Amino acid sequence: MNETLHTISTRFACRDYSEQSVEQEKIERIIKSALQSPSALNRQPWKIIAISNKKLLQEINDHVLEVIKDLPDQTVYQRTMDRGGNPYYHAPVMFLILRNEMSGKWDEVDCGIVAQNMSLAATSLGLGNVIAAMTATAFEGTRKEEFKAKVNWPKGYVFGMGLLVGYANSIKVPHEIDSSKVIYVN
Amino acid sequence: MNETLHTISTRFACRDYSEQSVEQEKIERIIKSALQSPSALNRQPWKIIAISNKKLLQEINDHVLEVIKDLPDQTVYQRTMDRGGNPYYHAPVMFLILRNEMSGKWDEVDCGIVAQNMSLAATSLGLGNVIAAMTATAFEGTRKEEFKAKVNWPKGYVFGMGLLVGYANSIKVPHEIDSSKVIYVN
Repeated sequence: MNETLHTISTRFACRDYSEQSVEQEKIERIIKSALQSPSALNRQPWKIIAISNKKLLQEINDHVLEVIKDLPDQTVYQRTMDRGGNPYYHAPVMFLILRNEMSGKWDEVDCGIVAQNMSLAATSLGLGNVIAAMTATAFEGTRKEEFKAKVNWPKGYVFGMGLLVGYANSIKVPHEIDSSKVIYVN
Repeated sequence: MNETLHTISTRFACRDYSEQSVEQEKIERIIKSALQSPSALNRQPWKIIAISNKKLLQEINDHVLEVIKDLPDQTVYQRTMDRGGNPYYHAPVMFLILRNEMSGKWDEVDCGIVAQNMSLAATSLGLGNVIAAMTATAFEGTRKEEFKAKVNWPKGYVFGMGLLVGYANSIKVPHEIDSSKVIYVN
């Protein structure tokens, strides 16, 4: 197995981060991988926000906990509490992948491509990470304008996907593969 | 730069394939990488079809050329003719990533994640590849039922994304990165 396949095989959804900060050089290397992503007609309909401000991340985390606590459906809140009670698991870096709201049919697929490029880049650099739609929550609730201003969210862009990154406190075994999902036409 | 970052950096959209077939072992390794993809709540809302039947691929290719030739907007047809006149560039393998039409909000993102895992796996195995939405065309036109039957397209699934794979006849330089797409919040 080559190293790329090894990276793909060992990537796991990290929800347990140490207090160690991520080096700026590694953050920039993950960003570079994002920008190397293919996109439909090479339109690159995305923007990437890299948040590593600890105080702001804590503020966002605390607000999100309030938001999900008040939801009529308690599923998300319960899942978060079961996972330690911190929606963003104290990850020291949050990446937001935004997409141009006026762009094309394949923009969501394109955001997934970017997310996985970043996830694998982070994994290869020895960093835990998890692609997490819940990174959207702070930017959709009652304080969305405030938080969008704080991260310089560009006008005309909507949430595509998010990625949390940091040094893993514990390693997880990736999910089992399900070969019933495959159809061969030889 | 580690090997995974190298794979991410050198991946390019291959539209020029040699006649060499892809080994079944490599096809299965790419499939395995697909199945190792993360998905929202690990729902894995996808199915993967791997088509390596040469006669069928030629038939699909020829039909798609007819379809796009007849479109009122000649953009796609012209682009295809400019690229050699074969919609699928004689790629010996076509992967289709389908998604469950009854699944969730993040399914399109999840299909992008799968597509990039497969693209990087293929690249790491020395194979050219291109993520191509145009792989949908044969399954949307006048002969869609016939072609869906031929590839055992499962009921309840819709097109998510496609990937063409083969040995590259020529190597391309990947696109330039655009650092203006990044916002740092330190």
